[in-house]
Amino acid sequence: MKIDGRSMRTIWASDDGRSVNIIDQTRLPHSFEIAALETMEDAGRAILTMQVRGAPLIGATAAYGLALAVAHDPSSTAMQDARSHLLKQRPTAVNLRWALDEMMRVLAPLPEGERASAAWRHAARIADEDVESCRLIGVNGMPLIEEIARRKGPGESVNILTHCNAGWLACVDWGTATSPIYHAHDAGPPVHVWVDETRPRNQGAALTAYELGSHGVPHTIIVDNAGGHLMQRGQVDLVIVGTDRVAANGDVANKIGTYLKALAADDTGVPFYVALPGSTIDWSCSKGSDIEIEERSADEVLLMTGRLDNGAGAKVATVAIGAPGSPAANPAFDVTPARLVTGFITERGVAPASPAGLRQLYPEMGGAA
Amino acid sequence: MKIDGRSMRTIWASDDGRSVNIIDQTRLPHSFEIAALETMEDAGRAILTMQVRGAPLIGATAAYGLALAVAHDPSSTAMQDARSHLLKQRPTAVNLRWALDEMMRVLAPLPEGERASAAWRHAARIADEDVESCRLIGVNGMPLIEEIARRKGPGESVNILTHCNAGWLACVDWGTATSPIYHAHDAGPPVHVWVDETRPRNQGAALTAYELGSHGVPHTIIVDNAGGHLMQRGQVDLVIVGTDRVAANGDVANKIGTYLKALAADDTGVPFYVALPGSTIDWSCSKGSDIEIEERSADEVLLMTGRLDNGAGAKVATVAIGAPGSPAANPAFDVTPARLVTGFITERGVAPASPAGLRQLYPEMGGAA
Repeated sequence: MKIDGRSMRTIWASDDGRSVNIIDQTRLPHSFEIAALETMEDAGRAILTMQVRGAPLIGATAAYGLALAVAHDPSSTAMQDARSHLLKQRPTAVNLRWALDEMMRVLAPLPEGERASAAWRHAARIADEDVESCRLIGVNGMPLIEEIARRKGPGESVNILTHCNAGWLACVDWGTATSPIYHAHDAGPPVHVWVDETRPRNQGAALTAYELGSHGVPHTIIVDNAGGHLMQRGQVDLVIVGTDRVAANGDVANKIGTYLKALAADDTGVPFYVALPGSTIDWSCSKGSDIEIEERSADEVLLMTGRLDNGAGAKVATVAIGAPGSPAANPAFDVTPARLVTGFITERGVAPASPAGLRQLYPEMGGAA
Repeated sequence: MKIDGRSMRTIWASDDGRSVNIIDQTRLPHSFEIAALETMEDAGRAILTMQVRGAPLIGATAAYGLALAVAHDPSSTAMQDARSHLLKQRPTAVNLRWALDEMMRVLAPLPEGERASAAWRHAARIADEDVESCRLIGVNGMPLIEEIARRKGPGESVNILTHCNAGWLACVDWGTATSPIYHAHDAGPPVHVWVDETRPRNQGAALTAYELGSHGVPHTIIVDNAGGHLMQRGQVDLVIVGTDRVAANGDVANKIGTYLKALAADDTGVPFYVALPGSTIDWSCSKGSDIEIEERSADEVLLMTGRLDNGAGAKVATVAIGAPGSPAANPAFDVTPARLVTGFITERGVAPASPAGLRQLYPEMGGAA
């Protein structure tokens, strides 16, 4: 999507084919910086420190990380070590494991001499496939927005609430939850997005608002507490969120707080959709309560980073916001039961959030519904 | 309750009887400062700028504000003007109107020469009655905690989640939601409190954590997004919140985000109680959707204040956290339907959140249940 009128992706190979470039998302929205990953360890650190984040982008970064490892040492032992190292950086996002397994599947049968170039090509392919998946999520999701628009007055915007950043910054391009929104904005009915700020890391206020603003999509930042009230008062037509992992029964792990919005949507009759590529489904996980929930640093809760004065090029500072000495806990994800999800929007179409719905979209994974 | 080992109230008359002192809550938790209110306008400004906040404390401050006005000019016209001025400072908290009406009821029949001293006495009485109400809320609520403790192992804490600050800083002493907690901590089973940070103004992380910590009550700050997850995983035994206004049907207006926690408690079978003095019930308001919801400044969402380095006496700074140029909306309260509330904890006892439950506690207001 666009930043300052320039079309970009979140990750791309350098021209010399020896390193990978990323948008450093820890600097956004306060400054726009590009970082180069030159080693597998750089890629691991980028995932761990959330310079890259979002399930699909973590997958693409891990794939490039493995390619960087293979360029350095194409032995099977080194590949396995790199896979293990990258896999442990974030426990919740299933795409990380999926992308690494994809790379290993392609590379393991090859002679060592062919692995480096094949790894580079296959990592690029994983990134390209993510772009196409996200594009199709938008194509498949836009009719849901158009349907609501038909019930509205002329010129009235469809109000969509989203949580966290399941935008193009979380993917390679387009985003998952935002793809139907960008498609509608570019070619369909007018949309307005309620952006949950998404404490503790504020990916909504910082990243989703940044990318929507950069692309020109009307939006309003709200605190995570506000969405239920807006739904009660009829100011939300549709919720679309992303996900870090979907269990085989349709339960959805996503950024902490998603469950609360799903409850409110259910209570107020607002449709609640989860947008995802098939790679986010963990077919080996039978239900949401089996998903490991990452506990992150208390500092993410107790410290906030922002611009000291609100102008361009302003100095960035971190302040401590809690009562001095009070501890904090920081579970990073929660699980929304499938019963609260109206449907999944995927690259293959829209289906109910149920084992049958998932099998209907991906019959090769579990037989026909 | 205690700060640095010293028992305090949030508001008290000065020794010379000419001004009123308050703890300036806009400075907490970063510094502890006392402010003097010398005129009715000072009292109004303290309410508007949230140097004092919390429905009961707003009521007590308004009562003292009217007393300051009467000391200056005891005429009926001046009293009415003062009432109007104070009433418009915050629209949601019903205690503001209740306290002003109480003052007018006592003062209006008196000759002008007797009004000043009567106003001062009656404001003090409103403050004292709030302390006693809050103490009784604690006495009446503690058995709910003891009952849960009996099902726990020896030494296991009862985990209580609260939202915003319905603590003694929101009242004159004890607090509403925190009073059962302080009573249990001082004399009952061990308790641990999950403190919702309560964006946008962070009254949980800043005030509730501060007052619990100052009194020695174990607690952990969490983001507002986390409570549902903790309930799903069995880590919350009980929710107790305060309220700014209860409608006659039992619907509860409270800090934005309360509704989301009530939904999660309902979904996970966690008891959800609302603690309040009778003065918070608006008998003239038939249902929650009739309650005016205050829309506050977008800056509360987009700016965060904290300590630049995390030590004692650290410099306080404000940072801009959102994407530059993105707008924000800031509804300050939401309405939790009575069906999601397990019960009310009041100075008269505990009762179901229903018209019948309210009449049972306050038969003089609406006949026997």
